[in-house]
Amino acid sequence: MKAMIRLKPGVEKLQAYFVNDIPYRVKLDANEGSNYLLKGGFNINHLKPNLYPDSDSRELRRKMAEYYGCDETNIMVGNGSSELINTIVNAYCDKGEKVMSFTPSFSMYQTYCDLCGAEFIGIETEEDFSQNIDKLILAAKDQKPKIIILCNPNNPTGYVTSKEEILKLLENIDDSLVILDEAYADFSYVTAMDLINTYENLIVMRTLSKAFGLAGIRVGALVANAKTIEYIWKVKVPYNLNIYSQYAAIEALSNTDGVDEYINDIKKLRKELYMQLEDLQFQLYPSGGNFIFTKPPIDNLFEKLMRRGVLIREFIYKEKVYNRITVGTKEENQILIDEIKELIGGCL
Amino acid sequence: MKAMIRLKPGVEKLQAYFVNDIPYRVKLDANEGSNYLLKGGFNINHLKPNLYPDSDSRELRRKMAEYYGCDETNIMVGNGSSELINTIVNAYCDKGEKVMSFTPSFSMYQTYCDLCGAEFIGIETEEDFSQNIDKLILAAKDQKPKIIILCNPNNPTGYVTSKEEILKLLENIDDSLVILDEAYADFSYVTAMDLINTYENLIVMRTLSKAFGLAGIRVGALVANAKTIEYIWKVKVPYNLNIYSQYAAIEALSNTDGVDEYINDIKKLRKELYMQLEDLQFQLYPSGGNFIFTKPPIDNLFEKLMRRGVLIREFIYKEKVYNRITVGTKEENQILIDEIKELIGGCL
Repeated sequence: MKAMIRLKPGVEKLQAYFVNDIPYRVKLDANEGSNYLLKGGFNINHLKPNLYPDSDSRELRRKMAEYYGCDETNIMVGNGSSELINTIVNAYCDKGEKVMSFTPSFSMYQTYCDLCGAEFIGIETEEDFSQNIDKLILAAKDQKPKIIILCNPNNPTGYVTSKEEILKLLENIDDSLVILDEAYADFSYVTAMDLINTYENLIVMRTLSKAFGLAGIRVGALVANAKTIEYIWKVKVPYNLNIYSQYAAIEALSNTDGVDEYINDIKKLRKELYMQLEDLQFQLYPSGGNFIFTKPPIDNLFEKLMRRGVLIREFIYKEKVYNRITVGTKEENQILIDEIKELIGGCL
Repeated sequence: MKAMIRLKPGVEKLQAYFVNDIPYRVKLDANEGSNYLLKGGFNINHLKPNLYPDSDSRELRRKMAEYYGCDETNIMVGNGSSELINTIVNAYCDKGEKVMSFTPSFSMYQTYCDLCGAEFIGIETEEDFSQNIDKLILAAKDQKPKIIILCNPNNPTGYVTSKEEILKLLENIDDSLVILDEAYADFSYVTAMDLINTYENLIVMRTLSKAFGLAGIRVGALVANAKTIEYIWKVKVPYNLNIYSQYAAIEALSNTDGVDEYINDIKKLRKELYMQLEDLQFQLYPSGGNFIFTKPPIDNLFEKLMRRGVLIREFIYKEKVYNRITVGTKEENQILIDEIKELIGGCL
């Protein structure tokens, strides 16, 4: 038997991504939404599965451009914004070059750095998880990262960086690519989409996984000025997005009337859930996403709820335990609250 | 206006992948097949597009394992074998490490190297495009590549490396990962799938794009021994394959009765087309794929056929022009031959 060949040293430390696969009643762990845009179903039988998909996803990019209020030449699409961020980090960062972001934030940024040999530099958020842009700018001027990634609203904390702060960042950074990961921006009030033609070093990431409720189709978008998109087209692999995902996204984008209402519903439910958790003595952080970040008042809430069929996410930061809870439907949120009440009662 | 940030130097030279988008009557340029496994259509409306897909594609891997005669622990799936080869080259090769393959072969191998900073070393095939494994072994012992990629049957030449030669390669190579790209192996008679439990440094790539006629769904498989699969799971990005592609592949793999007949039909049609082209004075190379590689007897055949609505591929190697022609249906092949006859008549 010939021996196994080792991966490059920088990726040896990676852990396989663990996805929860236990039975559940309520799933509030992955910030998924409701299937409301494709709930009528759709027919795929006119599509030709034997032919390669449109490598450039032109029809989909046209539809997205209409929705986002830009031009199709401002858009590149991929299998979720994940594929696109991974591609971009790898394409811009030579081995040892730096990627700067706040911590805690989306954990995959570190993984994408490890995969391509870039050095991840995490700038600590403040006590309340707010993101100090002055601190980020100072660190960037000092360490000269090739890329700065700002997740806004931030996952998992929900913190929203204001437009003024984003503008300050962009005005003060000349030599870094600035990626604004706006996966959750639909649930907030801040976006940098209108700035792509002012800052050639700006890339905005969007996704259909959250506010569109379409995590299963894996469609994300990279939005930037046309010159940048044309320039980075060389690192997009051909035929990356299959025919079904392209078509499902086109279908969803062909009738977006319900999107604003859905977003408003989630915002209302977020506020209600926030107040209910506040009443139960949860330490809460304001959230601009379809989730709430919290320090729970009892130990092992994650495991205890899991045993009762309610899935949420647990994060450990500086040895303290936090939870991220997706804002579900009214009924789902009520089940969560009822279960928490029973658990808290049992603790008293 | 802030200035654009440059990509890392190694990828600057890449060219955006050009995909033909001209109207056609017959498409024989991309080695696609017929839609025969999903021709009855299927319903996707029970799937839940709002939830993330199974990150591990378990049901799909079980179905594939049945078909390929291995265990699901031997399989990783991705958006075409392309995504998987790209992931593997990047995961194993640190900057400057070497990837060795024959030339001409699948052009994306070089691209995947450029994307991650690996050095691509092309070993020239012989005059007749046969692949001299002794030469490859000697070069590998000398240059110590991290990865050796053997495309078998080779794209675009169609050359089939025999099982004996593959065994010789595996027996003589200890310090390189050996990737056998078997995208077209279904149309041949050689596979290394049965060797994955003997050689831990062997990875076999398969795809549903060719013999299954499902290029549009973008599903490929990486087959290796279970220890290797477990080891490389850490570099697989989560949720890489969307719900629809997983489901379409499961549907196709649930009724594979027609696959052998389809493959036999293509082999028969390949033989007929070969003889027809031979009669027309084409210089031909034996092919184990669903395509024929040829040096045409007239200039600019590619452009001339394109103007007549018949798409084929053109390759230039050592300043000579070659064509790769997909074996189409009987009718498609006849249109091709008729058009070539008209063109040759016009040249006389």
